Amino acid sequence: MIEYRNLRIALLGAGSVGAQVAALLLEHGEELSERVGAGLELVGVAVRDPEAPRTAEIPKDLITTDAESLILGADIVVELMGGLDPARRYLELALNSGADVVTANKALLATHGPELFEIAEQVGAQLYYEAAVGGAIPIIRPLRDSLAGDRVHRILGIVNGTTNYILDRMDASGATFEEALAEAQRLGFAEADPTADVEGYDAAQKAAILASLAFHTTVPLEAVHREGIVSVTAEQVAAARASGFVVKLLAVCERLVDPATGVEGVSARVHPALVPVGHPLAAVHGANNAVFLEAEAAGSLMFYGAGAGGVPTASAVLGDVVSAARRHVIGGPGVAESTHADLPILPISSVRTRYRIALEVDDKPGVLAAIANLFSEHGVSVETVQQEARPDGASPTATLVIGTHEATESALASTVAALGSSPSVSAVTSVLRVEGL
Amino acid sequence: MIEYRNLRIALLGAGSVGAQVAALLLEHGEELSERVGAGLELVGVAVRDPEAPRTAEIPKDLITTDAESLILGADIVVELMGGLDPARRYLELALNSGADVVTANKALLATHGPELFEIAEQVGAQLYYEAAVGGAIPIIRPLRDSLAGDRVHRILGIVNGTTNYILDRMDASGATFEEALAEAQRLGFAEADPTADVEGYDAAQKAAILASLAFHTTVPLEAVHREGIVSVTAEQVAAARASGFVVKLLAVCERLVDPATGVEGVSARVHPALVPVGHPLAAVHGANNAVFLEAEAAGSLMFYGAGAGGVPTASAVLGDVVSAARRHVIGGPGVAESTHADLPILPISSVRTRYRIALEVDDKPGVLAAIANLFSEHGVSVETVQQEARPDGASPTATLVIGTHEATESALASTVAALGSSPSVSAVTSVLRVEGL
Repeated sequence: MIEYRNLRIALLGAGSVGAQVAALLLEHGEELSERVGAGLELVGVAVRDPEAPRTAEIPKDLITTDAESLILGADIVVELMGGLDPARRYLELALNSGADVVTANKALLATHGPELFEIAEQVGAQLYYEAAVGGAIPIIRPLRDSLAGDRVHRILGIVNGTTNYILDRMDASGATFEEALAEAQRLGFAEADPTADVEGYDAAQKAAILASLAFHTTVPLEAVHREGIVSVTAEQVAAARASGFVVKLLAVCERLVDPATGVEGVSARVHPALVPVGHPLAAVHGANNAVFLEAEAAGSLMFYGAGAGGVPTASAVLGDVVSAARRHVIGGPGVAESTHADLPILPISSVRTRYRIALEVDDKPGVLAAIANLFSEHGVSVETVQQEARPDGASPTATLVIGTHEATESALASTVAALGSSPSVSAVTSVLRVEGL
Repeated sequence: MIEYRNLRIALLGAGSVGAQVAALLLEHGEELSERVGAGLELVGVAVRDPEAPRTAEIPKDLITTDAESLILGADIVVELMGGLDPARRYLELALNSGADVVTANKALLATHGPELFEIAEQVGAQLYYEAAVGGAIPIIRPLRDSLAGDRVHRILGIVNGTTNYILDRMDASGATFEEALAEAQRLGFAEADPTADVEGYDAAQKAAILASLAFHTTVPLEAVHREGIVSVTAEQVAAARASGFVVKLLAVCERLVDPATGVEGVSARVHPALVPVGHPLAAVHGANNAVFLEAEAAGSLMFYGAGAGGVPTASAVLGDVVSAARRHVIGGPGVAESTHADLPILPISSVRTRYRIALEVDDKPGVLAAIANLFSEHGVSVETVQQEARPDGASPTATLVIGTHEATESALASTVAALGSSPSVSAVTSVLRVEGL
């Protein structure tokens, strides 16, 4: 049945994802070849250190340190080495030699995506990256193709498994951030240096990729507002739960109108947020990922699954390999990146959202009115106020939790600054955005 | 920027989906044209009755009753009339004239899909059908492309919004099937003649489409085992909830090994099933749809959203229109259907699942042992037994709820038959499968 010549697949990198891709290609190659209508031949795996330990066995004769020669002999180059260099140079070499490229490298795409897509378009090659966001969860194709006839208004994504694991543990067990991080590291859900995850860098890269795709507009990484979870406290998580919320690190991509200028544009941001317990995102536990989106015609959609891990991510990579191979067999280029909309990218100050703010205040008559006044002077409308009695009953201060209506980040920032210098307020203990209401 | 000629789009049918597709195409045509790189021109809408009321206004000069002339002048034919004839004839005409086809017609695909895909492949045209399953939810592309490098083991789908609405109402309010159906009809979630939904015909069509795609094997509609929800009682739903389950109408597609013969094959079935309350499918409320799937490498994935309705379904149709149009602009055919695996289709008797069976039995010593014996004689292993005291305390019978380990349908059927003729059993009041444990 198969009449097409074998397609030569080069793999760059044999880490946790790369080793599994190699293993699955070798194990299921025949089945995948039938789906394509051409043989899929793994011609080599480029690594830095041939002797390094791997999570799956790779035949010795496939291993090479000469990535460039491997690339030049390949029809499809699969880049799973990560990092900006030499990954970028290798992918440019691959595209310029006419090979299709499959990558899971979110850092590279968020940083140099536009240049790589430009090269691909010029030479008529394809760049596939389903595995760059959400691990095994199909999200790139749904956004690029299935929703191509719709207008996406908003994406709320849990796109980093490490931080979701940590926040979920804090919620379930009352652990502090440090305790939950240590547990995540022990179980392999967090790296020894967890900065990229817990400071939100990884999620910000994914937000840039999702926003660019959803809004047909190049959203550079540096335009993504980023806050991590290192300052989220056990008290905040417990108080959120008591009020019917869970704390999640969200990537939020929105199409919105700047309230100050009336300019329509897009915004991308990553920060911890309160999500109502009844929202589908609140039920995303452990290291799982989910992308919730709202589109004009489609309404609300959610995509859920394993967001990381060598084997699940290998599934997404192999889906791309099969897609690239099918394209080879049937001829013709695929779909170029679409950034025609080119909407302005709005700063975080123009974003409107709701907030919950916890304060320590003097437990005296008139204080509540003074604080309510202060909010209204800064243009922030208060929706709910909860006052908590001190357990010992003898403290001169009380805890006030204020939920606001939608307000701009700038109005909120000036409100918080004013609260900080108010004589009635001894401390602003928590400021968290609320999403998904 | 746009240099390609306009692409001519013909719409067949202007019902709830068709009228919205026309409205969105006319409203957002320019934006969609920019995404494609070519103008998208709606050249006509074929209807049976030009004077029929529509959910959205369509310009009079676009309306025609001459579907065939419209088809012959089109680049892309969008079929939203439903039914087998004349839809099949029109699509064959469209494909044979070289047009790409977009359809949401699940009945036609489940019945004559293989013939239509065959014609499309022969003439190099494309057949898109994202809207045929799950309304706005992207599920066809994820299965066809994103998971093309993986092996799907199992799909559990809530793919009919009407029945999910009815069962959800029964669960939330204690309503009977008849009451919940009447409410669904009043609110427009069920048709005046609800047979296609409540008897599972609609879900069975979708199961055939999903199973064919997931297993690379043509699964004909008549091979799908089908049970509807008309006999689901308020008592069953309440008892399920009390035991930690909700009742859902599931489309179950499995790759499995026939325990009798050792033959590996696939199975597709639609029936009411108990789903544990903690399972993501249990949280799918109202008329929403969701597809939960398990693949070898990807693990568990879920896709969730609006499963029906004119506007959400129009989103999926327009995504296909844009995909088809992009394909025109860049040239080259798309991806043909893949049925190379051609696995055997196993009968329902070879499916293994768990059951919960409710019985009225004599409240006498020795009865429980006799019934346990009867299960074991038929090769069904009992996992849990609950005995409920009668509220009045005076009845000579007791209610026994037996949860089984996995058993084959045939072993279960013979057990139920034996229970029915056992002198200790006065009635078998409920037999339901359990999925998602």
